[in-house]
Amino acid sequence: MDYAVEKDLLADLDTAVRPVTTTDTPWSDRYALRARGMKSSAIRELLKLIEDPAIISFAGGLPAPEVFPVAEVAAAAQRVLADHAASALQYGATEGYLPLRELLVRHMARYGIEVTPANVLITSGAQQALDLVGKLFVNSGDHLLTEEPTYLGALQAFTAYQAQYLTVPIDAEGLRTDLLEEGLRAGPKFMYVLPNFQNPGGVTLSLERRWRLVELASRYGVPIVEDDPYGQLRYEGSHLPPLVKIDAEHHGSGCPGHPYHGGVIYLGSLSKTLAPGLRIGWMVAPEEVVAKLVQMKQGMDLHTSTFSQMLVYEVARGGFLDRHVRHVREVYGARRNAMLASLDRHFPPTVRWTRPQGGLFLWATLPEPLDTAELLQDALKEKVAFVPGTSFHPNGGGRNTMRLNFSYAQPEVIEEGIRRLGGVVARRLGM
Amino acid sequence: MDYAVEKDLLADLDTAVRPVTTTDTPWSDRYALRARGMKSSAIRELLKLIEDPAIISFAGGLPAPEVFPVAEVAAAAQRVLADHAASALQYGATEGYLPLRELLVRHMARYGIEVTPANVLITSGAQQALDLVGKLFVNSGDHLLTEEPTYLGALQAFTAYQAQYLTVPIDAEGLRTDLLEEGLRAGPKFMYVLPNFQNPGGVTLSLERRWRLVELASRYGVPIVEDDPYGQLRYEGSHLPPLVKIDAEHHGSGCPGHPYHGGVIYLGSLSKTLAPGLRIGWMVAPEEVVAKLVQMKQGMDLHTSTFSQMLVYEVARGGFLDRHVRHVREVYGARRNAMLASLDRHFPPTVRWTRPQGGLFLWATLPEPLDTAELLQDALKEKVAFVPGTSFHPNGGGRNTMRLNFSYAQPEVIEEGIRRLGGVVARRLGM
Repeated sequence: MDYAVEKDLLADLDTAVRPVTTTDTPWSDRYALRARGMKSSAIRELLKLIEDPAIISFAGGLPAPEVFPVAEVAAAAQRVLADHAASALQYGATEGYLPLRELLVRHMARYGIEVTPANVLITSGAQQALDLVGKLFVNSGDHLLTEEPTYLGALQAFTAYQAQYLTVPIDAEGLRTDLLEEGLRAGPKFMYVLPNFQNPGGVTLSLERRWRLVELASRYGVPIVEDDPYGQLRYEGSHLPPLVKIDAEHHGSGCPGHPYHGGVIYLGSLSKTLAPGLRIGWMVAPEEVVAKLVQMKQGMDLHTSTFSQMLVYEVARGGFLDRHVRHVREVYGARRNAMLASLDRHFPPTVRWTRPQGGLFLWATLPEPLDTAELLQDALKEKVAFVPGTSFHPNGGGRNTMRLNFSYAQPEVIEEGIRRLGGVVARRLGM
Repeated sequence: MDYAVEKDLLADLDTAVRPVTTTDTPWSDRYALRARGMKSSAIRELLKLIEDPAIISFAGGLPAPEVFPVAEVAAAAQRVLADHAASALQYGATEGYLPLRELLVRHMARYGIEVTPANVLITSGAQQALDLVGKLFVNSGDHLLTEEPTYLGALQAFTAYQAQYLTVPIDAEGLRTDLLEEGLRAGPKFMYVLPNFQNPGGVTLSLERRWRLVELASRYGVPIVEDDPYGQLRYEGSHLPPLVKIDAEHHGSGCPGHPYHGGVIYLGSLSKTLAPGLRIGWMVAPEEVVAKLVQMKQGMDLHTSTFSQMLVYEVARGGFLDRHVRHVREVYGARRNAMLASLDRHFPPTVRWTRPQGGLFLWATLPEPLDTAELLQDALKEKVAFVPGTSFHPNGGGRNTMRLNFSYAQPEVIEEGIRRLGGVVARRLGM
């Protein structure tokens, strides 16, 4: 429309009785293309469910508040403010608080990841690391290769940059590497994988498949984003080397002192081992990629809360983080056992579920054509909640699946919740 | 290239002696288009300058650590952890902690902004609000209308979404509304304005121009993003109504109980009034826009640190925020006076500078063709720093300008720094 004409029309509108039109709040017709692809958010609604204390929720991925190191955080807050208030409350460097980056480097080394602080960027939770990965790499229409099902927060982060998805199914040993080459051949921008106690599947990528995955990724020149928020929360079996370590080994020992090879960007989090409310995650990447990520993060939030970073450092240092992780393992291991035992007792035998060696979630598959989104309506009437599996399928599917969290509720509550849910399932199955 | 051929080539590479190629760390050739437009960052380098304690820095926009409410933050941390640890350390709702949103609504009402908590989204600093605005509204190539010069962090945030810029110059009364129509006619996605104590100009938009701006924006149907991180830090003169208030008045009184009209998205921050290290900002927008922003923020960092939000609420409530703002005004007002007096004493008479009524910055214009980027090299040798003005010009220019911060250094340090800087300028001018 000609601006002179539009101007006159608007001038007329000014004197008339005006309805609430897009001219009144002229924002919604100005959304960027990327905003139109956004789905309304499952996580968001889930976090709301938790607010009704009468509901037994297996829905969120919430840590148990009983394991929060409250006394240690309180003591650390006092020390940080007594000794370092002028820097703790001030702006800080975008890459993060150096002593925390150094601590994380020492911490990762115990899990087989050898990098330098220059490879580490502190993020506002691992969710921001996912956003940064999407922002740095994804053009509209780019294909990413993911497991199916996969973490829905990653899908949210990447889809905001208009990613498309190629998927590879998982089984009890994790991503089906025997089905991987077709996806790699299609030329994805990168591969996004959760090798340990996968969210939502609860499965762990076997050692043999880890090697196969890295080998194939290297052969097709497809880099890997390894998301590992639960890696330290293993309740049985032995720690398996992360993909970032296998990538280094696959390409030879590397330069002395620089064992990080760089084909894998690794994402870590303190949300499950210390506390999510502080929003501290990190990412490991080649130095030149970190430099670019720092530029991006600066425009996004300048830097992660200095106070949170110094607080976390003060809590974690001196071996506390390792001791605390051992405690969390005991608590969550018992809850996993409780949930598996309850499922055996209360779920119909036609339902199958995974047996996670760690992490926060297990994954149940119900007989088709049962739809877990409909089932959730029944379940909420019985005051029990879970996440229907479709949310975790980038291209649809999984209508007969569900994710169950076992970290948040106490064992006796898990028993009661699974009893109720088993009844709901049985009724839907006409039993 | 055919994938079968590529695969074979890569297989061959595997057995050969391999240099560090993009196949080794295959990330940098996979950057998204948006990453290629990113400039290396001025703010980042500035924050680093501060780390050399020998330098007198007028460069950053740092609050004075002397005014941080350390004792109050320490006491609040203890109260929050004693009474609310289970929620303070847990995941929280994306829109933010409701009591804090309610407090901000009451706080804004005292500055003429009448909205409901449903219009308020808590962000990880106001920088994240800028990122959210860019992400929700900017398509590649969209034009935004800004003041010239304008806040470089906003340019960083918007440029990451490949924005282009239309600019309107400023003078002592702020944005030149007499030159605004040409830009509006070109159809920008929105207008980004800092009406109070503008960063970097230090100027304040006059009341008459505020009305003119809102009138013209409304006539051309161009919405406004009003960035107001310093609005409460006024050292002389009277508070002027924010654009968001004028927008409501311009369109009539609105529905009873809903005086917010929605043509303006308003950004606030606690970084300058409490402390930046906690990373708490907020934005005000129509409810349907908040809903969309919440979806986006969820993919970006799930939510802002629950602990930071509860801490800030606990510090700010009960009237402390207002009392503290009065204290900050006294301290910064004295520093502004010190800088103006020092400039009078030590700067050559051919240099002009603005006289801010508030905020953190003033803006100096040197005789052409003096280049302040070159001047900065001289200045750093004399251990004094500032930001060359070009960084604040979206489309280049301003080579003879500089931004000076007066909030961080104490008055006697300001005097010494301006003395040194005046000497550097005089020498460059051949005096």
